Amino acid sequence: MHAVTVVPGKSGSVALSEVAEPGSELGSVVVESLAVGVCGTDAEIARGEYGFAPPGKDRLILGHESLGRVVQAAAGGPVVGDLVVGIVRRPDPVPCPNCAVGEWDMCSNGLYTEHGIKERDGFMAERWRSDPDYLVKVDPELGVLGVLLEPASVVAKAWEHIYAIGHRTYWDPRTVLVVGAGPIGLLAALLARQRGLEVHVLDQVTGGPKPVLVEALGARYHSGTVADLGLSPDIVVECTGVPALIRQSAEAAAPGGIVCLTGVGSLTDRSAGGIESGLATTAVLRNLVLFGSVNANRRHYYLAARALSRADRGWLEGLVTRRFAPHDIVQALQRDPDDIKVILDFTA
Amino acid sequence: MHAVTVVPGKSGSVALSEVAEPGSELGSVVVESLAVGVCGTDAEIARGEYGFAPPGKDRLILGHESLGRVVQAAAGGPVVGDLVVGIVRRPDPVPCPNCAVGEWDMCSNGLYTEHGIKERDGFMAERWRSDPDYLVKVDPELGVLGVLLEPASVVAKAWEHIYAIGHRTYWDPRTVLVVGAGPIGLLAALLARQRGLEVHVLDQVTGGPKPVLVEALGARYHSGTVADLGLSPDIVVECTGVPALIRQSAEAAAPGGIVCLTGVGSLTDRSAGGIESGLATTAVLRNLVLFGSVNANRRHYYLAARALSRADRGWLEGLVTRRFAPHDIVQALQRDPDDIKVILDFTA
Repeated sequence: MHAVTVVPGKSGSVALSEVAEPGSELGSVVVESLAVGVCGTDAEIARGEYGFAPPGKDRLILGHESLGRVVQAAAGGPVVGDLVVGIVRRPDPVPCPNCAVGEWDMCSNGLYTEHGIKERDGFMAERWRSDPDYLVKVDPELGVLGVLLEPASVVAKAWEHIYAIGHRTYWDPRTVLVVGAGPIGLLAALLARQRGLEVHVLDQVTGGPKPVLVEALGARYHSGTVADLGLSPDIVVECTGVPALIRQSAEAAAPGGIVCLTGVGSLTDRSAGGIESGLATTAVLRNLVLFGSVNANRRHYYLAARALSRADRGWLEGLVTRRFAPHDIVQALQRDPDDIKVILDFTA
Repeated sequence: MHAVTVVPGKSGSVALSEVAEPGSELGSVVVESLAVGVCGTDAEIARGEYGFAPPGKDRLILGHESLGRVVQAAAGGPVVGDLVVGIVRRPDPVPCPNCAVGEWDMCSNGLYTEHGIKERDGFMAERWRSDPDYLVKVDPELGVLGVLLEPASVVAKAWEHIYAIGHRTYWDPRTVLVVGAGPIGLLAALLARQRGLEVHVLDQVTGGPKPVLVEALGARYHSGTVADLGLSPDIVVECTGVPALIRQSAEAAAPGGIVCLTGVGSLTDRSAGGIESGLATTAVLRNLVLFGSVNANRRHYYLAARALSRADRGWLEGLVTRRFAPHDIVQALQRDPDDIKVILDFTA
């Protein structure tokens, strides 16, 4: 069968290759791919900056934002024909206490695997296998939009943690600022609106689909700097990882506010000026929380599935800005400023 | 009567002055001072860098770490002879929702007053007044050590928030690193030991009372850099506000770890190199929480009173490194590297 593979650490090695069918040791359920989302981590792996092949292999099958249809079922799992998404992270080979209780998103020993990222083949293949426990059923009415479940699960986790941390004290948040209108930012805005919050989204582009999608949620779209907004948000969901925007977010947040960092900056960019002293003063005197959030566990996939199911289908369709056949993976990895979510269409 | 006063904003204006007896509008309970702790905020106010006099006045009575004895009681409050500490922050003039529910430490509108700091006279006076609601009784066996209640309340709040935030997920912390062995750091170490944690304390001094006090708690004392320790603490309580130490703390913390910032850096020192990009990557990929904590509410004073009551008296005595009569306030404000807590003794 065909799969998009890459030699981790080797820039330019991404290609549509002929690979063996997945073996039964990879799980009892066989899924045929419908679509796979492309994200910044895929591009990073394609540039040779991250990623680990499965033990004993040179090439890694790319892709972690899956959507497929069950073609061979297993007891206790989804049935043939069900639309499913594969959970990305797996608590192996040696589960830590967090992994043991099902919170592998909070893995404390680093010994996890991740489909398409770390030591486990991904989903950009015609067929893939999974244990039934690591599949999440998707509302069939969502169709191809189920491919948004994985990024939505990351956002569902971030929101769960924002509220858990917020409730360390009396807390009645009203206003949220989302920095960055990529898929994570827009899904964060969707979930914020579903929680009844007043939502502001900041991005650098002034045209294209992003302002339209934001307004369609009943949220406000802004460009410019955080300071220009004159907002004092109770919550900031920072999705860019850009140092200056993190600093501005911390400075703008209301007392007792929460800045959730979901974007990682470039590992090599340490050029910008210091915020440590300002950060400390701001954080302490205003009881500020900055926290990082990565990945998601099964609960978050369920929360995300419910959130997507409640969302307007037309709006969700607007998030998918381009579709490519698997053999156009190299083009799919090139981002356009107006891109939100690019997907590989395995039915093409 | 005599009181230590300062003209806020005017360096060198601190002096022992003759002032009027406190009026009954300041509260129905009259307290005679026994001792008042001196802290970094007092020194900052004495340097003219912070502080606000009460409305219509030029001078502010300094001091917020109080200990006194009730000499005139009021219904429902402590009785004559009780040892009491005054709560520093008051939710006025316009309570925000947090203040309204008694969580003025999390004040969201900034319209609070603080004894000895912001628009309300402090406790470095022979006598002061309070409403009974803003007094906390101290275990009489603690005697003068009750003066440690206010800094202990700040630490009790920090610990409450650390655990509340930690429990956003499965969390079983074992190891804490306290950075800075001043009064806040040492009291943080005390409360950590009372919670059964493995405690490490880092400070720059290698001799004097600090290592002895740390070892006496059953904790480990270290000097040098955070990285040198080779620790991966579940919790860091950062008490210095020094940018490099905040960065090192974030880098050392275990995945899912919590860095609690209790120290504010100098407002003018923004010289050190950037951590934003490194911070974002570290925080996100490791689900890290950095949060700032300031002040304390009534609940934290009660928690602190219990913690001090359970502590070894000799150990607590070791925290008070120097005592001065009120007329030596200028000397009391000069810090020595081995100082932990300096107090003004109003019984002298």
